[in-house]
Amino acid sequence: MESVKEQLDLIALDTEEVLPPAELKQKLEKAVSKNKPLNIKFGVDPTAPDLHLGHAVPLKKLKELQDLGHVVTLIIGDFTARIGDPSGRKATRPQLTSKEIEKNAKTYTDQAFKILDKGKTKVAFNSQWLAKMDFTDVLNLAGNFTIARLLERDDFSKRYKEGLPIGLHEFLYPVMQAIDSVEIKADIEVGGTDQKFNMLAGRELQEKLGQEAQVVITLPILEGVDGVQKMSKSLGNHIGLTEAPEEIFGKIMSIPDALLIKYFKLASTMSPSEIEKIEKELKKGELNPAQAKRDLARSIIEIYYSQKEARSAQDHFDRVFKEQKAPDKIPTVDIEKKELKDSRVWPVKLFKLAGLVESHGEGRRLIEQKGAYINDKAITDIEKNVSVKSGDVLRAGRRKFVRLRIK
Amino acid sequence: MESVKEQLDLIALDTEEVLPPAELKQKLEKAVSKNKPLNIKFGVDPTAPDLHLGHAVPLKKLKELQDLGHVVTLIIGDFTARIGDPSGRKATRPQLTSKEIEKNAKTYTDQAFKILDKGKTKVAFNSQWLAKMDFTDVLNLAGNFTIARLLERDDFSKRYKEGLPIGLHEFLYPVMQAIDSVEIKADIEVGGTDQKFNMLAGRELQEKLGQEAQVVITLPILEGVDGVQKMSKSLGNHIGLTEAPEEIFGKIMSIPDALLIKYFKLASTMSPSEIEKIEKELKKGELNPAQAKRDLARSIIEIYYSQKEARSAQDHFDRVFKEQKAPDKIPTVDIEKKELKDSRVWPVKLFKLAGLVESHGEGRRLIEQKGAYINDKAITDIEKNVSVKSGDVLRAGRRKFVRLRIK
Repeated sequence: MESVKEQLDLIALDTEEVLPPAELKQKLEKAVSKNKPLNIKFGVDPTAPDLHLGHAVPLKKLKELQDLGHVVTLIIGDFTARIGDPSGRKATRPQLTSKEIEKNAKTYTDQAFKILDKGKTKVAFNSQWLAKMDFTDVLNLAGNFTIARLLERDDFSKRYKEGLPIGLHEFLYPVMQAIDSVEIKADIEVGGTDQKFNMLAGRELQEKLGQEAQVVITLPILEGVDGVQKMSKSLGNHIGLTEAPEEIFGKIMSIPDALLIKYFKLASTMSPSEIEKIEKELKKGELNPAQAKRDLARSIIEIYYSQKEARSAQDHFDRVFKEQKAPDKIPTVDIEKKELKDSRVWPVKLFKLAGLVESHGEGRRLIEQKGAYINDKAITDIEKNVSVKSGDVLRAGRRKFVRLRIK
Repeated sequence: MESVKEQLDLIALDTEEVLPPAELKQKLEKAVSKNKPLNIKFGVDPTAPDLHLGHAVPLKKLKELQDLGHVVTLIIGDFTARIGDPSGRKATRPQLTSKEIEKNAKTYTDQAFKILDKGKTKVAFNSQWLAKMDFTDVLNLAGNFTIARLLERDDFSKRYKEGLPIGLHEFLYPVMQAIDSVEIKADIEVGGTDQKFNMLAGRELQEKLGQEAQVVITLPILEGVDGVQKMSKSLGNHIGLTEAPEEIFGKIMSIPDALLIKYFKLASTMSPSEIEKIEKELKKGELNPAQAKRDLARSIIEIYYSQKEARSAQDHFDRVFKEQKAPDKIPTVDIEKKELKDSRVWPVKLFKLAGLVESHGEGRRLIEQKGAYINDKAITDIEKNVSVKSGDVLRAGRRKFVRLRIK
C-alpha cells in the first residue's frame, strides 16, 4: 500500500470535503500498518440504470481508492426502488418489480465496471437486510434521529419553508441509507455533495450503535452540457456512458468553455499535471478551447470505448459539424406510401413518421426553431405540406439524419 | 335502539367536540335503520395499569354508548408498550416484557369493567397486526402523513419551537394509532382532548385507504385533586379506582370547590337533572360545598364498590377527619424485638419498619413536618430514640394508622 501521506493527497484531489480529515488519516494509518484494505461504500439507485458523466465522478474517485488497495462495496438500493414513492397512493405508483431492478442493477454495474476494478468491488443489495426488518426494528432505529436534525437537510428545509409537503416516509430514507453503512461496516462513504446529509446520517447511526463511524467524502457535482444545471437525464443535459462515441463527442464539443477544466478534472483520466498544462495554455491563448474540447472528448471516449473509436468519433464530428456534410452512414427509414398524398405530407407528421421527433409538439418546435431540414434545406412554413421522394435526407438539428425510403 | 335524535343528545352531553357532527348523525342513522351497532374504538396504554378517575371519564362515555346499543373495542397498546421509548438507546430502556404487559392489561380491563359492559366489549392487542408489519408496510403507511401535519400536534410543535428533541420514532406513534383504527374498522374513536390529533390521524388514514372515516369524540380532561393539573399518577394528584373507599372519600373531600360540578359531571353517575339541581342549590347557598362533596364521594365509591362501602367510608371520614379519632380497625404490624434496643428505637427507622414510610428520607421528612405520631403524640426530636411497646398506635399524617406488636 502507498504511504498514508500519498493516499491522503490523492484522496483530497478534486474532492469537495473530507469529514473529518483526522479520522481519514487514522483509518489510513491503521489500514497501512495492518495491510488491511478499507471498505468504501457507494450507494446506487437502480431506478436510473443509465449512467452519465455525472455518475462517473464518484466512480472515478472509487477507482482511485481501489488503486490505493481499498475495496469498494456498491450498495444497490433495490429495497428503496421496490417501494417506489409511496405518496399519493391513489395514483398508480411507479413500483419496480424485482426483475426490473435486477436488470437495472446489471446494466448499472456493467457500466460502472468500465471504470471500477471488478476484482476489488463487492455488490450488495440492501433488500437483504432492510426487507427483513419489522416495525420494531424501524422504531428502534428511527429513535436515533431527531425531527429537527432531519429538517436541516437542504431540500427538506426548503420544502418545509415553502409549504411543500414532505412525506413521513421520506424521513426514513436517510435512516435506510444509514442502516446500509452499519450493515456493511463502511469505513468511508463516497458521494456527491447532495448526498452529504445522508452520508453523515450513516456516521451518526454507526456511532450510536457503537461502531466506528465512517468518514464521508463528498465530490463536486458536474454540471450538464448547458453549463448551469446539475447533469441529469430528466433535464436532458446529460452525456450518457452508453451513448454512441459520436454523440458523446458532439455533446462535449457543445459544453461552455468555462466548464472545460472542471470536465477535465472530473470526467477524464488525464493526470493533474497534464490538466494544469492545458489550463495554463488556455489562459495564455496558446490553446484554443475548441481544440481542448476535442482532446477532452477523445480522452473521455477512450475510457468507455477505445482509442480507435475516439478517433473515429472525431472524424465523424469533423465531417458533419465542420464541413456540414451528411455523415457516411445515414440510417434509412421506411415511410408508407399511404401516409403521403400525391407525394406530399405535413412536415410535422413527416418528422414524426421518420422517428426524428417523438410528438407533433416536438416536431412543431423543431420546425419553428428552424431545426428541420430536407436535403439541407430548412423547412420554413410549418403549415405547408412538403414533397418527398425516396433518397431524400431529413435532418433534425445538427446531428440527427435519416434517409427516406417510400414504400 | 334509541332514536338518532336521542342518541345524538346523549353523546353530546359533557363531550368537548364531535368531529364532524354531520358524520356522526349519518353513522347513527345507518346503525338505527339497519339495527347494526357501531364499533367504538378506545385505546389503552398498558404501561399504566392503575386507572384513576381521569381514565373513568372516557370509560363513562363508552358505557353510555354501550347502553345505546353500540360495541366497544378496547385496543391494548401492547406493541407500543413493548417498544418502550427507543430514544437514548445507551441507557437501559424501560421495556416491558409480554408477561408484564399481559398482567397490566388484565389489571386494566378488570378495573375498566367496573364501568364498561363486558358483554359489549371486545379486547384487542395491537401487536396482533403491528408486530407483523415489515419495513415496506411502514414506509407505505408513513407515506400517508406529512411532516408539516405531524408538527402541528401541540406537544410536537411546542418542543420543536423550544429546540427540544423529537425522535423520528415518535412521529410513527400517531401512525400506529391510525393503523389501529383501520385494522378494526372503527366507526367512532373516543378519547381525551389530548388525543385529538392522534384520533384525527386515524380518520385521515382510513380515508386514504378507502375506508369510511371514524368520527372523533373528544372528552374533557379531569383535573386532579390539586384542581390545577391534569389528573395523573406521576403528579400524585390522582384518585385511583382501586384505592380503598376511605382513601377515595378523603381525596374527594380535598378537591377545590370550583371543581365540584365538573367532578359530578365527569366522574359520578348522577343524572344531568340531579347535577343541575345541585349546581343551583350551591349557587343559592342552600347546599354547602362540604355536603355536596360528601354526596359526590359516596356516589363515586358506589360505582367502584357498593352503597354499603360508600356509607362506611363516610363514617370513617367523619370519625377520623372530623373527630380526629383513630379509625375502628387499625391494622397490626409486627416488629421484631431485635430491632429495638431496650424497647427503644430511632423514630425514622420505626416508621419505616412499620411500613408507614418507604424510605428513611421519607421518614425524616414526615417527622420534620410534624406528621409522625405515637399514641396521638407528635414526635418532635428526630434524633432521639423513642420507647415503644405492643399496642402502641403509630400515625403518619392524618390518615395512616398502624398498631404495633413487638415479637
